[in-house]
Amino acid sequence: MIPPTGSGEFDLIARIRARVRDRGDVVVGIGDDAAVLQPPPGQQLAITTDTLNVDVHFFAQTRAYDLGWKALAVNLSDLAAMGAEPAWCTLSLSLPASDPAWLDEFLQGFLDLANEQRIALVGGDTTRGPLSIAVTAIGCVDAGRALRRAGACVDDDVWVSGALGDAAAALAQWPTPRDALRRRLDRPQPRVALGRRLLGLAHSAADVSDGLLADLGHICRASGVGAEIWLPTLPASDALLALDAADRVVWQATGGDDYELCFTAAASQRDAIVRLGEELDLGLTRIGRIVLGHEVTALDASGQPWQGARQGYVHF
Amino acid sequence: MIPPTGSGEFDLIARIRARVRDRGDVVVGIGDDAAVLQPPPGQQLAITTDTLNVDVHFFAQTRAYDLGWKALAVNLSDLAAMGAEPAWCTLSLSLPASDPAWLDEFLQGFLDLANEQRIALVGGDTTRGPLSIAVTAIGCVDAGRALRRAGACVDDDVWVSGALGDAAAALAQWPTPRDALRRRLDRPQPRVALGRRLLGLAHSAADVSDGLLADLGHICRASGVGAEIWLPTLPASDALLALDAADRVVWQATGGDDYELCFTAAASQRDAIVRLGEELDLGLTRIGRIVLGHEVTALDASGQPWQGARQGYVHF
Repeated sequence: MIPPTGSGEFDLIARIRARVRDRGDVVVGIGDDAAVLQPPPGQQLAITTDTLNVDVHFFAQTRAYDLGWKALAVNLSDLAAMGAEPAWCTLSLSLPASDPAWLDEFLQGFLDLANEQRIALVGGDTTRGPLSIAVTAIGCVDAGRALRRAGACVDDDVWVSGALGDAAAALAQWPTPRDALRRRLDRPQPRVALGRRLLGLAHSAADVSDGLLADLGHICRASGVGAEIWLPTLPASDALLALDAADRVVWQATGGDDYELCFTAAASQRDAIVRLGEELDLGLTRIGRIVLGHEVTALDASGQPWQGARQGYVHF
Repeated sequence: MIPPTGSGEFDLIARIRARVRDRGDVVVGIGDDAAVLQPPPGQQLAITTDTLNVDVHFFAQTRAYDLGWKALAVNLSDLAAMGAEPAWCTLSLSLPASDPAWLDEFLQGFLDLANEQRIALVGGDTTRGPLSIAVTAIGCVDAGRALRRAGACVDDDVWVSGALGDAAAALAQWPTPRDALRRRLDRPQPRVALGRRLLGLAHSAADVSDGLLADLGHICRASGVGAEIWLPTLPASDALLALDAADRVVWQATGGDDYELCFTAAASQRDAIVRLGEELDLGLTRIGRIVLGHEVTALDASGQPWQGARQGYVHF
């Protein structure tokens, strides 16, 4: 690959190779010009790339472990939104200087999540530069079955997993967020198992990375429909509810970085979805419905259009 | 994917979508949480990631077109070294500010090479940050046939494509390299067709990105063999020969960024390889042989070990 940054790259590659868990479908792993992979028959591949830059996507003080975790998590969240099963990933790491202790911690976070989700790190590169982490993740999904943003139908229910707004609240409280909120910002849990189980249940899905209204807007735009969202129904964590915050609903409706899944499904699937949430021990909350039109309308407790929505995020 | 940098990301995505040439195996392209791809039956996937950072891998003055070209070229060169046929790629672009003219030029360079090599850009993200370009490229190769670094056999011939040292000479002449040299530095031509045709002919291959002796060292280490290289046989371009430079052989033997292929093959394949070079209109030069041992030894015109080799690059 790219000329190494002195001997550092080779050290790093050795460190990674020693700690990566193998998959039988990795024919050639780290250490050649490219990795060679055996895709499973009858499956299609879902592929996504997301980059985290210091001072843009995370604070310089963020713990190395959390950064490694999150850099992979945001990509796995995209695979989850497609209903894909994680398989392989690559890691491009730009570092201002070689710091073995930092690197080990970073890798530990990355590989802990990788091993939990059975995704193999098969290649990448390290370069000198301002701290930046680019990850590409590939998953597998039965041919023709991937969840799409397009597919939402009028009268579909709109659902969201878990709780919303914690990451935005942690950002608002920075640099001293409560632990429970900080954990949600720094160590999001990609909803991979949920995404897999939504195949055949959901009509459309997206992960909540830009904020609920924005991401639901992506679904609506791709599907040629509108939506109404009932703000009082948006799920909140205990940590968020404990805050005496006027901004709570803003964080829930427009805060990014939650990495929950927003999906739509026919009303006939309500019971199945509730059972799925119980089975996965993950809250699944019905928060609105798909309607004719081209807008996402957020309704407050009195059924009136919410005035708090940031214009650019809600209309398209 | 990642929260967008204002509306810029969506503009960029629209720009890219309008200019990407389609492939029938792209089931879902740019614009969903992930792309969905249909891998061809009976094939394995080769995957590589390389990042280019400003002031590390390229000068800030580098033309946007050339940067787009090169960011993809260095990845295609890795696929070429595996004998893989390019299929799909992703692009992660970190930019300090939105500059539509710069972006258009950058994309033109990227997509000109992508279209030439029939590789589809299927996803990516744009983020704010110091200029950095991370590309992941995926190619296809018949199952079990990928060229590896491991595989070199004692008595194999060592071959290299094209000419060596031009990129290093351009760097040495910076900021006023001759056009022919600058073009080789800024717009390398990945040897994809050659790599594909080496399947079944070559025992091992690597691309020359770190420098000939270093990359041949990778082959030798992976194969558990040594090599001797005959310095006077190293191919040079007319532009390089025109320089009255004592450093010429240093550039040829240790300069990086050439993106030629170095490969080894049995002596019985010499005629076939010469014919292949004629067919591809690409010089293929026999520059040494694989020997017992664990060292790459460069021999000068009098058959003596070369004193100019940088220690760390030649021994391992």
